[in-house]
This record gives sequence, C-alpha cells and structure tokens, in this order.
Amino acid sequence: MKLYGYFRSSAAFRVRIALNLKGLSCDTELVNLQAGDQSSAGYKAINPQGRVPTLEDTGSLLVQSMAIMEYLDETCTTSPFLPTDAKGRARVRGLANIIACDIHPLNNLAVLNYLKSEFGADTEAVNAWYRHWVKQGLDGLEPLLADSADTGVYCHGDAPGLADICLVPQVFNAQRFDCDLSGYPTILGINAACLALDAFERALPGNQPEAAGLG
Amino acid sequence: MKLYGYFRSSAAFRVRIALNLKGLSCDTELVNLQAGDQSSAGYKAINPQGRVPTLEDTGSLLVQSMAIMEYLDETCTTSPFLPTDAKGRARVRGLANIIACDIHPLNNLAVLNYLKSEFGADTEAVNAWYRHWVKQGLDGLEPLLADSADTGVYCHGDAPGLADICLVPQVFNAQRFDCDLSGYPTILGINAACLALDAFERALPGNQPEAAGLG
Repeated sequence: MKLYGYFRSSAAFRVRIALNLKGLSCDTELVNLQAGDQSSAGYKAINPQGRVPTLEDTGSLLVQSMAIMEYLDETCTTSPFLPTDAKGRARVRGLANIIACDIHPLNNLAVLNYLKSEFGADTEAVNAWYRHWVKQGLDGLEPLLADSADTGVYCHGDAPGLADICLVPQVFNAQRFDCDLSGYPTILGINAACLALDAFERALPGNQPEAAGLG
Repeated sequence: MKLYGYFRSSAAFRVRIALNLKGLSCDTELVNLQAGDQSSAGYKAINPQGRVPTLEDTGSLLVQSMAIMEYLDETCTTSPFLPTDAKGRARVRGLANIIACDIHPLNNLAVLNYLKSEFGADTEAVNAWYRHWVKQGLDGLEPLLADSADTGVYCHGDAPGLADICLVPQVFNAQRFDCDLSGYPTILGINAACLALDAFERALPGNQPEAAGLG
C-alpha cells in the first residue's frame, strides 16, 4: 500500500491514525500542498480532484479519507473502527461526519485562500471564520458525547474508532487556530485519551518526516 | 420511523431517496429552516447540532445523512446502496463523499448567510462562491465516472446506490444556482437515469407537501 499525503492535511492525518491502529505498514509519498503538488498533472492522474489523501492498494487508487477508512476497516479486522450493532455504527458514523462533513470542509486551505483572495479577508477575519465553524460543530458534538451512555473512554465505548480518528485531527487544528475549547470537556478528555495511544501520537503532523523540512 | 427534514435540504433529499429506494415508509416532521425551527430548544433536544435530517427509529435519534443512509442499508437489504466487494464499496463511498464532504458543506444556507453577513458578499459574489465549489468537486467527479469501467447506467454499475443518491440533490442544487454543467456529460447522464426512477422523482423538493406553502 502507498499513501499519498501531507503532514498538515487533516484527512491524511486521519488515514495515518487508521493505518497505525490496524497495524498496517504503508509506503508514503509526499504531496506538498504548499508547493502546489496536488494540482500537477501527475498527481491529478492519481487523484482527479487534486486532493489528499489517496491510498493505492494492489493497483487501485482509493480517494476520500472516510471511504479509505471504511475500506481499511472492511479489509482488516484488527481493532475495528465501528461497533457491531447497526445503531452503534450509525452513532459513530454520525459523530465522525459532524467533523468530516460540517467542520473540516469549511476550514481547509483552499477555502481559507478563497476567503483571502475573493473577499479580501484578513487574518483576523479568516480566524473568525475558522473558529465559527469549529464552534458550530463542537457545540453539537459535545452534548452528543457528554449525554450518552454509549460514550466511554473514547467516543463510543472503551476502544478507539472512526469518530476518535476524526476527532483528534480536528482538535489539533482547532488548537492551532487558538479556538476556545474550554466548553468541551468531554471532547478534550477523549482527545487526551487518544493521544496517549501510540497509534495517534505517531500520526501527529509534527512526527512526519517532512515536518522538519517544511515547518 | 420518523424523518425530521425540510424540502430544500439536500441532506434530507438524500434520505428521502434512500427511504424510497428501500421501499420504507416513514412519517415526516417538517423543520422549517427558513423560519429557524432548527435552532429551537425543542429541535436541539432532538438534534444538538440543529441540522436536518434526523431519523428517529425505535426510540433512537440518528444524525447526519451519510450515517443514516449506511444505517438504512445495513438494516434493510432491499436495493443495496453499496456493492459487495471492498474496492467497489470504497469507490462508491469515495464518489459520494466528494459531494458530501467537498461540495455540499460549502454551499449550505448557513455558510451562504455567513458570507453575506460577515463578508458583505452580494448575490453575485455568493453565486460565484457556490459555482466555484460545485466546479471544483464536479471537475474531480466527472473523470472518476467517465474513465472507469465500473460506471454503468448509474455511478457504479446498473443499479442506483449511495453515490447516485448524493449526486442527484447536488445536480439539482447546481441547476438552481445556474451552474454551467456542460462539461459534465457523464454526471448529467447518470442524473437523468436516476430521475427516471420513481424513488428519485418522488423525493424531489417540489414534490414534498410543504413545497406548495413555502415555495
């Protein structure tokens, strides 16, 4: 397997955690988003959207981090990302998608660049936008976690899963943008429990080989 | 089952199609997004995010349309939304998530309202934003469909599935915002094939009971 990714991409961060939890080894190929590698003809032949990550497995190119993680979960039974009951699976996917569909897409680099170039947004306005959508999403997520008996050490029970894999990169980014997270004690507790695990810690952006050179 | 939705919500539109394809009957409860029903304390007790849709099933409240559709697919075997092979499933989920994660979240009502109120965007600027993200996503989606032998009458083979369910509401919205879709013949062909099916046609926003009153 080969993962096309970038240390700062949240979506690639998710897949790194997923691979680590599964104990799968994977070659990595750097797509330098700051240098514009994602828009090259070469990379667009691999991923026509020009996004990371892409996972190459036995000749197939898989796109979209959420689809890649479901694939890894279906093909490798170690450390399952979803519970076995349908309602539990819907809960975990729902929690994961609050992040993957309602927070992260609004805060990626392409969007922030559009705000600057087309709306003349300055750093303060971009940061306000960023924090607004983090707050909107986490305001929904916190009670769904805090008020449910299904929540354990992690988002669902006492083993990490799909929702946790999405949560940690989102919290990491929120902290990078100085979002006020004091209203989310349950989220922060789960985040800390995840980061105590080697699979999450090794996947952190700063622990990727390219981080040293690209800062 | 009861679906909390709104005729103009793309995410609720997806779930309506899904229920129709499965042949499941479902009560509906209107959450009038124009009137702000989604922000009421009553609705937030049902869906803390204040978003539609929510699906209530035997006492459980399920959030996020993609999670709801996976739930319906796992609990009802009629008209499966995903193929049986892992790579095919990853392909369909990847196609669906290009829409659900990279187009739709940028174009929902809350986002457009933020652009107007915080960046002073006029109608023209909002429309340009809308069309930009539609183009970004569909530019990636079209070759993934056009260049794959897995594409059939629908996004994956000759039965409609998860990607088609996401595609039709997205094309519907793109047409509403006068996006130029002439570069996407494969997408338009699949959209037409879907809309020829009763399950998709009945789910159209204009065919919901509230559409007449709320226009």
